[in-house]
Amino acid sequence: MTDTTIIAVGELQDICSRALSHVGVPGEDADIVARLLVRSEAEGAASHGILRLPMLLRRLREGSVSRTAPMAVVHETSTTAMLDAQDGIGQVAGIRGMELAVAKAAAHGLGAVTVINSGNFGRAGHPALIAAEHDMIGIVASNSSPRVVPAPNMKPVLGNNPWAVAIPTQSEPIVVDMANSVVANGKIRAAKLEGRPIPEGWATDAEGRATTDAGAALKGALLTFGGYKGWALSLIVDLLTGVLGDGAYGDKVGPPDDLKRPQRSCFFLLALNLQHFGSPEAFRARSQDLIGQIRDAADGPVRIPGEKSAASYAAALRDGVKLKGAALAELDAVFAEIGFRR
Amino acid sequence: MTDTTIIAVGELQDICSRALSHVGVPGEDADIVARLLVRSEAEGAASHGILRLPMLLRRLREGSVSRTAPMAVVHETSTTAMLDAQDGIGQVAGIRGMELAVAKAAAHGLGAVTVINSGNFGRAGHPALIAAEHDMIGIVASNSSPRVVPAPNMKPVLGNNPWAVAIPTQSEPIVVDMANSVVANGKIRAAKLEGRPIPEGWATDAEGRATTDAGAALKGALLTFGGYKGWALSLIVDLLTGVLGDGAYGDKVGPPDDLKRPQRSCFFLLALNLQHFGSPEAFRARSQDLIGQIRDAADGPVRIPGEKSAASYAAALRDGVKLKGAALAELDAVFAEIGFRR
Repeated sequence: MTDTTIIAVGELQDICSRALSHVGVPGEDADIVARLLVRSEAEGAASHGILRLPMLLRRLREGSVSRTAPMAVVHETSTTAMLDAQDGIGQVAGIRGMELAVAKAAAHGLGAVTVINSGNFGRAGHPALIAAEHDMIGIVASNSSPRVVPAPNMKPVLGNNPWAVAIPTQSEPIVVDMANSVVANGKIRAAKLEGRPIPEGWATDAEGRATTDAGAALKGALLTFGGYKGWALSLIVDLLTGVLGDGAYGDKVGPPDDLKRPQRSCFFLLALNLQHFGSPEAFRARSQDLIGQIRDAADGPVRIPGEKSAASYAAALRDGVKLKGAALAELDAVFAEIGFRR
Repeated sequence: MTDTTIIAVGELQDICSRALSHVGVPGEDADIVARLLVRSEAEGAASHGILRLPMLLRRLREGSVSRTAPMAVVHETSTTAMLDAQDGIGQVAGIRGMELAVAKAAAHGLGAVTVINSGNFGRAGHPALIAAEHDMIGIVASNSSPRVVPAPNMKPVLGNNPWAVAIPTQSEPIVVDMANSVVANGKIRAAKLEGRPIPEGWATDAEGRATTDAGAALKGALLTFGGYKGWALSLIVDLLTGVLGDGAYGDKVGPPDDLKRPQRSCFFLLALNLQHFGSPEAFRARSQDLIGQIRDAADGPVRIPGEKSAASYAAALRDGVKLKGAALAELDAVFAEIGFRR
């Protein structure tokens, strides 16, 4: 099935949102999830796109994600808050957490929020962008289940732990959004499907040995970029999320593929209000100037972080989102399971 | 000259401090610089150690670092401050900046301070540790002169931009302290001295071409670890320091080796008060538990970031610092220039 369907962003959001409402997710929350899944798909990050909807719908059915859990405030001060998502939907917890950080930063200059016991929040850049939309710098991170090692002969304890920083400019925000492995898991899955070996330096097998066998790598661990340097990023994220928030960290975070077990992911969300650092307009002029310096220094085009995603999203808003037939068939299969007609 | 001299930490600090006082640096500031240079040396980070003292003394003589410039407050709110070091000594600006961030976080939970127009602050981990000593998480970054590229065929705009995160545990703090190149410049300098080529993937020459010639690499740029991933870290640092603080950024930051030109480095210093996230003691128990999980998962010893430096420093406090004859001779040469007897 290599056929593709083109569907308008708004229409696809509406389908996703109604499917979530159909299984009991409150309308506002369903809209957040639908918007972010479609945005990921449209940004070219299909791994965080529409294919996450069937997983989420199945988790909602299994009860490993709660459809209606309210975010509980465990501890709060003027600039900080510790929230408990109570196994609620990750996308909702990520956005609500950042909205609270932004509110605190609006009043006091800085706001830092931890969230514990959450489902996967999708792309870290999305909650970070909420800050950028409010003339703030947003920093976001999430822990995840054990998956990465800095070198062979180590069992993974830390997750690939995505993180993002969003920074206002005079045009689209700069959005650095990454995880810490040399390559994404999806590239290894693709190699396995195509029966190809993977390059050395990507992964280890279940015994911790370096491997070029894609199948063995999927049962082992991903190597971090820069070895101990990338691994240190995963460590910092786990400390700022599960450890700081008093939630799950290290080997206590649940895997993405066990749909019966809550993931208990934890987030860190920080907002820095540019108004407390002089004028946001002057900041935007300077960040734009730095981008200009970088463009001038390259012989060819330069990838400014976030630029490609923003351009893809803008194109999708204009021309619609391309969905592969297989993705649509997968959606229809799960819709049939839950008795929903799109 | 391969002979080494062993000298007590306190004695070496005293020599450094008196030399700085001799050229007019106020006693308290001289003590800060002496303590951090000796600490770097003792931690095994000789590139930030005693060899920086001759450079600093020459910069003080040239006037590209000011001996007495007071830190000026450009803008301040309850949680934030923008400071201007007015070409003062970097180590002093880094510590004073973090002390202010810590004071704000003590009162309000979070504190973020930018510093502009400063000399080089040495190891980013040192000001970060100030926060950890106060039951806080410290995040520190500095921009620096253009030196790194994500890939060939690009002129460097961003510096190698060191950054650090210090996090309390029940034992020594975790200190992640890194710059963003694949290898430190010192490794390329060493290869040049020994007439060795460098591996592919370390650097480019002055025309932006990939090179294995160490001499050509010293005139070119360092490649960032993980390509665009490491480069994005340098970009984030420049945005949080020079761009946020309204100081020098990108190609406006001065190089380390032009002693007549102020470096105008900029810093970002953030403190998160653990008391605003529940109990610092409980946090320390959790971060220690995560370290335990990591140790248990490895077949052999694991490098917990900061551990090796802390152990080296503790050993030096007990047994003294080893200084190579060449380093001492270099010190004595600069002491003769300034008319100081140790």
